[in-house]
Amino acid sequence: MSARGGIDLGGTKIQAVVVDEGHNVLGDARHPTPVDGGPAGVVAEMAETLKEAAAAAGVEPAALTGVGVGSPGVIDDQAGTVSQARNLPDWAGSFEVAKVLGEAIGTDRVGIGNDVSVATNAEFELGAAKEFQSILGVFWGTGVGGGIILGGERWDGRGAAGEIGHVVVKMDGRECPCGRNGCMEAYAGRRAMEERARHKVDKGQKTQLFKIMEERGRDRLTSGIWARALDAGDELATELMDDAVRALGAGVASACNVLDVECVVIGGGLGVRLGEPYAERIAAAMRPHLFFERAPVVRTAALGDLGGAIGAALLVRSSVPA
Amino acid sequence: MSARGGIDLGGTKIQAVVVDEGHNVLGDARHPTPVDGGPAGVVAEMAETLKEAAAAAGVEPAALTGVGVGSPGVIDDQAGTVSQARNLPDWAGSFEVAKVLGEAIGTDRVGIGNDVSVATNAEFELGAAKEFQSILGVFWGTGVGGGIILGGERWDGRGAAGEIGHVVVKMDGRECPCGRNGCMEAYAGRRAMEERARHKVDKGQKTQLFKIMEERGRDRLTSGIWARALDAGDELATELMDDAVRALGAGVASACNVLDVECVVIGGGLGVRLGEPYAERIAAAMRPHLFFERAPVVRTAALGDLGGAIGAALLVRSSVPA
Repeated sequence: MSARGGIDLGGTKIQAVVVDEGHNVLGDARHPTPVDGGPAGVVAEMAETLKEAAAAAGVEPAALTGVGVGSPGVIDDQAGTVSQARNLPDWAGSFEVAKVLGEAIGTDRVGIGNDVSVATNAEFELGAAKEFQSILGVFWGTGVGGGIILGGERWDGRGAAGEIGHVVVKMDGRECPCGRNGCMEAYAGRRAMEERARHKVDKGQKTQLFKIMEERGRDRLTSGIWARALDAGDELATELMDDAVRALGAGVASACNVLDVECVVIGGGLGVRLGEPYAERIAAAMRPHLFFERAPVVRTAALGDLGGAIGAALLVRSSVPA
Repeated sequence: MSARGGIDLGGTKIQAVVVDEGHNVLGDARHPTPVDGGPAGVVAEMAETLKEAAAAAGVEPAALTGVGVGSPGVIDDQAGTVSQARNLPDWAGSFEVAKVLGEAIGTDRVGIGNDVSVATNAEFELGAAKEFQSILGVFWGTGVGGGIILGGERWDGRGAAGEIGHVVVKMDGRECPCGRNGCMEAYAGRRAMEERARHKVDKGQKTQLFKIMEERGRDRLTSGIWARALDAGDELATELMDDAVRALGAGVASACNVLDVECVVIGGGLGVRLGEPYAERIAAAMRPHLFFERAPVVRTAALGDLGGAIGAALLVRSSVPA
């Protein structure tokens, strides 16, 4: 049996899977991303998370064919390095992820790819968009990332394509966490939504969002907290989510007017947690802005929270199709 | 000698060229697009315009290797038909352009392509973007059209990619001539700008725009009229053009954040007439919205007003590179 490892490195969590040749998940594990210890600390935790997934799968880590990593930041797959991963602690410089991770796990085959690209590719090859050749992956979480596949091939541009979160939906609009104004992410990113919620509470608006957060022992508004507040009919949560859906409608429709893809896959923490009803709401919000008559199919990511890690494992499959 | 014809069919003008094997223009002619006579009348005028270009080139029309047409509407190149060319008179249905035009000229080789695609391809193969592999063509005129080349290949999506004029730059923004709200074209398209100018004049604002129009015997605000009013420091023209540049900055930057192309080529009636200073203004207006550090190169279309017709002639070259 030939098993592979996949790791999805996020700003708040590390998700690892071990999969078999048919891409079935044999074992998985999830750890919080450490905030201390810099890149070396993060990579050590990635190794621990993968070892836990391997144990769950009943596989020796050193027996894995290889390990793939989906990472934020600037990736040099040849050199095995990640640099400028600014949403990770103290990771402005370059770090030899492949070498250090490979040594910790006991494998000399470590592949690294962009986190959004590998997750999009997983949905394209194995998930919600299997029957399509041209797709836009929208990863709706802390920020909003995008992955593009056109005519069956990944489109990366000069290395930075798919920055759909920073499509402008409103000139002179809200300030985005990125510092620009009017980006889609300024309305739809979880970080921006939380900032806006705190601002509204400071101004006296009532909400259960932060009460739910405290009850659940968290220090930020996770996707689950948003889902609970929405279920409870919380007014502020509803208002901010309506803004987010409208912005996603405008921004994703804009990208579709440019790309004319067959399918849009909605993933990411919020996309997966809120699921199909919100994929339908986003599709409805896109409609007034779509220029052509044939709207693309809009679906929720079928691989859910594990899509990024499963996609990362695709980086080290034995035979890569041309 | 092997000469080819190219025809750019626009809503207001028909531009024809005859080119040699090196794509040099041997002769050209321009006629207004007839408003009476429907598709048959338009195609008859296309034949007349091409014959005039052939006469200027000293070439018998029937001796041309073939004739290419860049057309609006839905194109079926195999069938040789154009349908739903809604900005042309009475052209909602399908018309056999290849057959009728070929008979009128005396050639059995007529190729038809999308007007914006062929103009983008001309700039890619022969014009401002020759050294790049990934480009976005922005055709800024009555409306704003876009053409996309990625990794050296045209990207058409399901047939409607590149509708950059209908990227949303302002949710709940101005009404676009297309009926939607907040499209880039609602601020930057010449038709929308003229509507806005008329509206402002009705409300009492002063402008020389319509005085220049009358002096020049026109019934609409052409690119040349806008250029003259801007040169004269006309306040309303300046205000509307500032809005247009800001919208182009936001919308083109949005498309670049998604596509990450190497080069943006600004063509179309306004793009060519206003030239390099406005390409620079658009580049500056893009900068606050570009997510990545490396801005794409922004250039004016090098083939000018003839680019569409020269690109159309590329449709019938003898040997098409793979």
